[in-house]
Amino acid sequence: MQNVKVIIWGLGAMGSGMAKMLLNKKGVDIVGAVGRGAKLGKSMYEIIGVERGDRPEVLIGTPEDVIKEKSADVVLCCTDSYTKVAFDRLKFCLERKINVISSAEEMAYPQAQSPEHAKQLDEIAKANGVSILGTGINPGLIMDLLVVVMTGCCESVDHIVSRRVNSLSPFGPTVMHEQGIGITVDEFKKGVETGTLAGHVGFEESIHMIADAIGWNVEKVTTSMDPIVTDVDRKSPYGFAAAGNVAGVAMKGFGYIDGELKIEMDHPQQIEPEQVGVQTGDYVIIKGTPNVNMVNSPEVPGGIGTIAMCVNMIPQIINARPGLQTMISLPVPRAIMGDMRELIEPECKIVK
Amino acid sequence: MQNVKVIIWGLGAMGSGMAKMLLNKKGVDIVGAVGRGAKLGKSMYEIIGVERGDRPEVLIGTPEDVIKEKSADVVLCCTDSYTKVAFDRLKFCLERKINVISSAEEMAYPQAQSPEHAKQLDEIAKANGVSILGTGINPGLIMDLLVVVMTGCCESVDHIVSRRVNSLSPFGPTVMHEQGIGITVDEFKKGVETGTLAGHVGFEESIHMIADAIGWNVEKVTTSMDPIVTDVDRKSPYGFAAAGNVAGVAMKGFGYIDGELKIEMDHPQQIEPEQVGVQTGDYVIIKGTPNVNMVNSPEVPGGIGTIAMCVNMIPQIINARPGLQTMISLPVPRAIMGDMRELIEPECKIVK
Repeated sequence: MQNVKVIIWGLGAMGSGMAKMLLNKKGVDIVGAVGRGAKLGKSMYEIIGVERGDRPEVLIGTPEDVIKEKSADVVLCCTDSYTKVAFDRLKFCLERKINVISSAEEMAYPQAQSPEHAKQLDEIAKANGVSILGTGINPGLIMDLLVVVMTGCCESVDHIVSRRVNSLSPFGPTVMHEQGIGITVDEFKKGVETGTLAGHVGFEESIHMIADAIGWNVEKVTTSMDPIVTDVDRKSPYGFAAAGNVAGVAMKGFGYIDGELKIEMDHPQQIEPEQVGVQTGDYVIIKGTPNVNMVNSPEVPGGIGTIAMCVNMIPQIINARPGLQTMISLPVPRAIMGDMRELIEPECKIVK
Repeated sequence: MQNVKVIIWGLGAMGSGMAKMLLNKKGVDIVGAVGRGAKLGKSMYEIIGVERGDRPEVLIGTPEDVIKEKSADVVLCCTDSYTKVAFDRLKFCLERKINVISSAEEMAYPQAQSPEHAKQLDEIAKANGVSILGTGINPGLIMDLLVVVMTGCCESVDHIVSRRVNSLSPFGPTVMHEQGIGITVDEFKKGVETGTLAGHVGFEESIHMIADAIGWNVEKVTTSMDPIVTDVDRKSPYGFAAAGNVAGVAMKGFGYIDGELKIEMDHPQQIEPEQVGVQTGDYVIIKGTPNVNMVNSPEVPGGIGTIAMCVNMIPQIINARPGLQTMISLPVPRAIMGDMRELIEPECKIVK
């Protein structure tokens, strides 16, 4: 069997990280990279900061240049957070008969907020004999799939709390800006009103994924977004929040089932949480038969986690039946420590 | 779609628990029960201690009486711990073209210790167009599948510790006897030598499942089994260990990959651990990129957990491709809070 052939669309922090991870794996080649602006025409190796060695050159090109019919087994599309923005790009890949993994948060469960786009992606994928999956650390694993797995040992479930208390300190300037690190409380409120502060994207997706998995019908989802105001100056590699200003965002999501609040998402993100005694961690708290009271502490880092999830699901999406897949329709994610080809069913390989 | 039709083979603690759980679920019927000895001819409802109400009677019968070709969508086979002992029963069900879920510990990954039986079951299942799965709380979820899931957010994995510190206090006289609760240290040693003390069955299965999932080749597995000697008298509902005698079993398993110890299983089981300050819990400790340091405390109770896992995997095994399946080849387990029929793909239903 030929090596698994991968194209990466988008060489920001996530796409570059996936490229670097793939270069350390056996049985897989990066055969194309799609970028834009100043990156066009440059070597992927230069952009991601890895010695090319004796590997064939990969020049960053436009989608039309790089993504030809059946030219790879999968495209990792790392360009967007929202399904409707990513849609045309995802369609472009599927129509070239290549499987797709998207890191767009909303694509982790596009049925939640973009059911029409989800339906179309399913149809386009099926028409072209390939499959598509959205994943990442969250949504994708921590606040949804992990919860679903733990309900698997329950005879019944009454109430779910999914909590992720994480540090934003490892992130760069873009995330500092998107999350409002260092701004005043007034600026934060304006940012929420005008929609310029994104905060976490994914509660709708996580709540619908959990509910659909266990057979609850979601009546409504509400969310809230509040500033985490710091009492002391906090400084991270790329962020600074003076005392009295915003050091993070406390986001909550509430899923109502049959008139009752049954799924709660609690996700405070901030720089330097340790400085103020906040212990980070991922929590799954299920009231049911039996109760589950699980914590992973410190939290799985968001960047590495998303990179790993997207790469590690490559075999599953290649092997999947055609159509739109989700983390609850595929076998579980897992690290790939051997030759990636050993995980691929020969009849599902695109580049034979 | 007709309700999902289930036959239960074996009405001990596990089978009876599954029956009770199923009676509380929507879209599913118990259409047969297989037992032996004094239970033959009696009402299943009498044996499990549930009012029949207006449900049709289910009389406990022999396998030949109850399991007719395509007479159910799945048989839950709760009779054994070992693949080679369960084999003929599992074959009997598959040849009657019915899917099977087995609670036998070794069946959670029969490839580990009975590769020839595993191959035969796969072939028999495929020849009859049905599928078969072994599962339970452990092996099946806690010390293996949950570990695999958490490797999914890792770029690489160096070393794994899977630890389950659990209480035997909820269990009945059979488990007290099998685990040697209350016997002397000399009796324990003799029991280990003669193989009459089973301890935990499943390390080989868990280690091979994890290793196969992430692409490690297991060179060898070793296990150890030591008495947990109590300093104080301990009393549980069905067990008693006087000071100086055996209050539990400390089992360890070691999986070697490329000459290195890479997978460690640590599973001390005892009555009344709280009495001596032992906090029970399920631990997943991964050294890798990133590290994972997860605990669920107290542990998922073994009895309820196994009952729930076997019932909750019914939709997945009905929907599965024909053949021998495992927890790493199927979509994740999940609680079933809605109508079970909504989880079944119509073309996979046996009793249409």
